[in-house]
Amino acid sequence: MPQRIYNFSAGPAVLPVEVLEEAREALLSLGDTGIGVLEHSHRGKAFVAVYEETEALCRELGGIPANYKVLFLQGGASSQFFMIPMNLLTPETTADYLVTGAWSQLAVKEAQKFGKVNIACTSEDKNFSYIPEQATFTPGAAYAHFTSNNTIFGTQFSGPPDYSGDCLIVDASSDIYSRPIDVAKYGMIYAGAQKNLGPAGVTLVIVRDDIVERGPATLPTMLQYRTHAKNQSMYNTPPTFGIYLMGLVFKWIKKQGGLAAMETINQDKALKLYRYLDGSRVFKATAANDSRSMMNVTFITGKPELDEKFIKVSQKAGLDGLKGHRSVGGMRASIYNAFPSDGVDALIEVMRAFELGLTD
Amino acid sequence: MPQRIYNFSAGPAVLPVEVLEEAREALLSLGDTGIGVLEHSHRGKAFVAVYEETEALCRELGGIPANYKVLFLQGGASSQFFMIPMNLLTPETTADYLVTGAWSQLAVKEAQKFGKVNIACTSEDKNFSYIPEQATFTPGAAYAHFTSNNTIFGTQFSGPPDYSGDCLIVDASSDIYSRPIDVAKYGMIYAGAQKNLGPAGVTLVIVRDDIVERGPATLPTMLQYRTHAKNQSMYNTPPTFGIYLMGLVFKWIKKQGGLAAMETINQDKALKLYRYLDGSRVFKATAANDSRSMMNVTFITGKPELDEKFIKVSQKAGLDGLKGHRSVGGMRASIYNAFPSDGVDALIEVMRAFELGLTD
Repeated sequence: MPQRIYNFSAGPAVLPVEVLEEAREALLSLGDTGIGVLEHSHRGKAFVAVYEETEALCRELGGIPANYKVLFLQGGASSQFFMIPMNLLTPETTADYLVTGAWSQLAVKEAQKFGKVNIACTSEDKNFSYIPEQATFTPGAAYAHFTSNNTIFGTQFSGPPDYSGDCLIVDASSDIYSRPIDVAKYGMIYAGAQKNLGPAGVTLVIVRDDIVERGPATLPTMLQYRTHAKNQSMYNTPPTFGIYLMGLVFKWIKKQGGLAAMETINQDKALKLYRYLDGSRVFKATAANDSRSMMNVTFITGKPELDEKFIKVSQKAGLDGLKGHRSVGGMRASIYNAFPSDGVDALIEVMRAFELGLTD
Repeated sequence: MPQRIYNFSAGPAVLPVEVLEEAREALLSLGDTGIGVLEHSHRGKAFVAVYEETEALCRELGGIPANYKVLFLQGGASSQFFMIPMNLLTPETTADYLVTGAWSQLAVKEAQKFGKVNIACTSEDKNFSYIPEQATFTPGAAYAHFTSNNTIFGTQFSGPPDYSGDCLIVDASSDIYSRPIDVAKYGMIYAGAQKNLGPAGVTLVIVRDDIVERGPATLPTMLQYRTHAKNQSMYNTPPTFGIYLMGLVFKWIKKQGGLAAMETINQDKALKLYRYLDGSRVFKATAANDSRSMMNVTFITGKPELDEKFIKVSQKAGLDGLKGHRSVGGMRASIYNAFPSDGVDALIEVMRAFELGLTD
């Protein structure tokens, strides 16, 4: 078995080793069933038990109230970008969008196909390097939508915006279950699994019962939330392996102490990295101080050729996936739930050595 | 490791053991990358190589012409039920649907939301126990759609219907790559992976270039075929593990000798089962002789309580998943590509003993 390296990928991203080891055993036989986890009928007892445990752990960890459904859908967060307005917006109504990065922009683009969009705030003026302090909401809007963590730009909302409407929706793809979340403040919470929760190909949707019922019943069956809510996400064959693996990740999070403990661990990891960056004479964090993400730490040297050199050095040192997104450049260390603290130490060590090498 | 049992599940279904064993190794490290297959960025070199190999094998096995795109989508065949009419049908145009089972019926229901549907033929009069010999197509129709194998009813088209229009579409979810397919006869071929190709959560779509471009550019981005065609199915994060595993299954099919060899193997398996059923005094195949599926063999005793008894006996003998769909009753043996021939022998043995026990 080749040695595992530190994987700073923005997603799909590193998963806990013990989760992978358990999944490994299940590929040829889930428990003692003699049938691998990929091969079980989604309607059979063995998989239904997996499903129920996954949902129960999701509810327990998130403190999800009984009037919310937990759905496991497909198509990524990108499919929610259109499913939400398709179900909740009409040409006559308005939705508020807080625009804090590339993913919010894509969400806006899809919403505009269905109704009116009010840009409640935007940080585009400074290349999305900060989270705006204020947002202007539309009275009577169908919903308000924001992106809690901006993977590309390394910014994160410290909490939900101050919103008095009845349907606040968050794309939490890159920080879901990395800290406690007050579900009751939201109409819907959604997240692609491939950063904090599991493999690509399954999208967690936590949605309040009344929102489920708002979509027109004339929509394609698969695009109505009610279809999936009524059928425990089994109207058609769900992404069984993704659900199984998400369940293992939930178990692992529970073992770490739940979401409050995860937040402490994640803050420790991120803050030591930011502390190093703030003291560095070579590297510099790109996100505004009060908007820094605990999940994706973006930084630059200020010289693209030096960034490139550092990325090569880091790869040689066994640190993978540090190249920043092209729209920010530089580096990005994605340090989701499963990213180990000693990987952050290793990165700091490599940065320190690189810095010394330059100033020698 | 518990002993593997014979899994007759209709889907998700049995996969080749050597595929599962290889996937097992990749969970902690894909090749010597030190990063598991679930954890690789879809834009990184390692996964792009997996993707390219999977697509190349798919093209090689299917003999797919260069003017067809191979897409790996999400949402199952059920999502194609609405994506197809959403892209290709308008209120002014007609699509022809050949109705040979529950899945075709669901496809019709979604198409009716977008335009006119002509039922080109139906076998509903005899509970879908046969494939109609003739179909009546609409001149100038947008497309014609059929289901090549009917999982629930155990019937299968021997080949594509005689069709002269320019866009024949097949839902081949339960017999894709179980026999050679002349791709050039089709505008689109699609299949959920979970029966013959891999795990649930990835849908293979083989589509001719001109069909890709027919959909309105005003549709949600994720629902336009051109979005996925332009971006090699990576407009957003694709179901990476499903694509990887499908690639392993393609490699395995190639090793068996390709699609023509698979057809011979599949026919051998199915025909020995039908032969036994035709000679049995207790069991009886439900599908019409000339419409029998090589993938799903449906049979009954004629007495529901005896069916139930047999299913219990078979479970004790280590044969799982034989209970038929509620709309047919009785038993169903799903014997897709990866189902081993000795599993069919085991089933025949159990049936023979059951029959003897009754007549003793």
